Amino acid sequence: MKASELTERELIARIAKLLARQENTILGAGEDDCAVLDIGGEDYLLITTDMLHRKTDFPLRMTGRQIGWMSVAVNLSDLASKGARPLGVVMAMGIPPDTELGFIEEIARGMDECAEKSGTQIIGGDTDSNDELTMVGTAFGLVNKDLLIRRSGAEIGDFVCVTGNIGTAGAALIALDKEIPVSQEILKALLEPFPRINEGMALAESGAVTSMMDISDGLALSLHDIGKTSGVGFKIYESRLPVLPAVKKLLKGGELLKAVVYTGGDFELLFTVAPDKIEKARKACPLTVIGEVVEEGFFIEKADGRLEEMKAQGYEHFEKQV
Amino acid sequence: MKASELTERELIARIAKLLARQENTILGAGEDDCAVLDIGGEDYLLITTDMLHRKTDFPLRMTGRQIGWMSVAVNLSDLASKGARPLGVVMAMGIPPDTELGFIEEIARGMDECAEKSGTQIIGGDTDSNDELTMVGTAFGLVNKDLLIRRSGAEIGDFVCVTGNIGTAGAALIALDKEIPVSQEILKALLEPFPRINEGMALAESGAVTSMMDISDGLALSLHDIGKTSGVGFKIYESRLPVLPAVKKLLKGGELLKAVVYTGGDFELLFTVAPDKIEKARKACPLTVIGEVVEEGFFIEKADGRLEEMKAQGYEHFEKQV
Repeated sequence: MKASELTERELIARIAKLLARQENTILGAGEDDCAVLDIGGEDYLLITTDMLHRKTDFPLRMTGRQIGWMSVAVNLSDLASKGARPLGVVMAMGIPPDTELGFIEEIARGMDECAEKSGTQIIGGDTDSNDELTMVGTAFGLVNKDLLIRRSGAEIGDFVCVTGNIGTAGAALIALDKEIPVSQEILKALLEPFPRINEGMALAESGAVTSMMDISDGLALSLHDIGKTSGVGFKIYESRLPVLPAVKKLLKGGELLKAVVYTGGDFELLFTVAPDKIEKARKACPLTVIGEVVEEGFFIEKADGRLEEMKAQGYEHFEKQV
Repeated sequence: MKASELTERELIARIAKLLARQENTILGAGEDDCAVLDIGGEDYLLITTDMLHRKTDFPLRMTGRQIGWMSVAVNLSDLASKGARPLGVVMAMGIPPDTELGFIEEIARGMDECAEKSGTQIIGGDTDSNDELTMVGTAFGLVNKDLLIRRSGAEIGDFVCVTGNIGTAGAALIALDKEIPVSQEILKALLEPFPRINEGMALAESGAVTSMMDISDGLALSLHDIGKTSGVGFKIYESRLPVLPAVKKLLKGGELLKAVVYTGGDFELLFTVAPDKIEKARKACPLTVIGEVVEEGFFIEKADGRLEEMKAQGYEHFEKQV
């Protein structure tokens, strides 16, 4: 069997099975947005790594600065989703030999800017020669042991919430693909997503959140991930999804649904909250309640009241993006 | 200017200049084998990352298991050189889509084996599709704040020491290149180098070591790195270099010198020790004194007493290997 016949999640599950684990590992390979280690003391150490490539991850119109920004943001977003305070990022860069030094420096500036605006820093890395520009960031941070939010804690009856707007990055992707002109606001959601570090920390502090992850792989796929790990299902209301008016103007019907539910790219947080704690969560950061945790199944209630199944579709490597 | 016109060290220095640093960073980008962070408590957190590619880093005869082993070992060796106790490794794998799943599983087993034999574990990672097999490991560990060994502590008069034998991996590389048959012992030094985690921790504990790094980039380049950071020079005695008899039999003259001094691949530790503490260091682990720290310059005293300059040549990306 070839690697390409498996989804990324299936492949990671196959690899994870072969890895022995020590006692101090709280969450290991394939289990959550970050690996979580008990290193003694009050805090857990969290680590996450992400490999990005020029062809598949950096749209051609991305500037060097945006490539650097994105390579850091994608890792910080994983830390954010566990409520962690970032300590730093290391970045391994595979660089085509004929790349202009100025372009590499632009990338470095973008890395630095994203780290700095998220209250952290680039503390090291590696450079290597590679045919295709390849950026592999690893971010690590700390979270108080009592405040770690896992994917696995969602309970039936919890509210489902998101930060910010969703579907903006997806709309930008569709627009770029179809060569429709779009605003800078929409483009920026795709090309310079802002990791929700502060929101993640505040939500962890609130003690109101039962499960959390980021939706960079898309809302549907992320709901399936939480549902699978928590052993629950979800019902989402299309009418409640926070979508920018400009996105609603740009896309209609199935295409809008695709952008909002089945496309990745938004670095927002998806989380569940016990109904009696929703006010606590609201005090932590702006949020929108988009649905509720149900016993099983994944459903979206359309504007006209019809219940549709929400498939586990979204951003996956080794598969054509849907 | 193109990236290829700079050495890896020059490129990293250019990038590091653009990165802001927070107060808790003890050692940052380009300064040492690992980045070192103060996270409170008694220990520093150390992090290191390394990008390896099929074409440039994995000789064609390498098995999947050896590729996995090497990808972990190269990072653990950096932790070893700072005397750190490893906590874990994350591995981002860029995999050509037509790769057999069995081969990927073999790689994962090799990763796991190297981590386990070094007293640590693979705790997470990422997979992505890539034209060329690309392995990016990130290792992290802890070291007591009083025991951290930097590159910068070498003092004039210190003894220069190495663990194990050197030149074995270099000999294997030359032999493979020239299609000369070699023993498994020599081949293994190149294809399955064993990171000196235990030796590194014992040397740190001994309190005898003033500076340390690994010699995976070659003895000469590593001496230049320590010399530059510590503001000192080195005099090495060719006759004292610990070289396997089989390597001396295989290579002669300039080729032997090239393997032992100017080629990377050995994952041994290079370190300096104050003369009055050499017995303490010897109790920590087997070592060979190969020279001494001098005020300036980099010299090798040949067997016949001639003093030769030791150039900063060894393993560098973006340059043809010398």
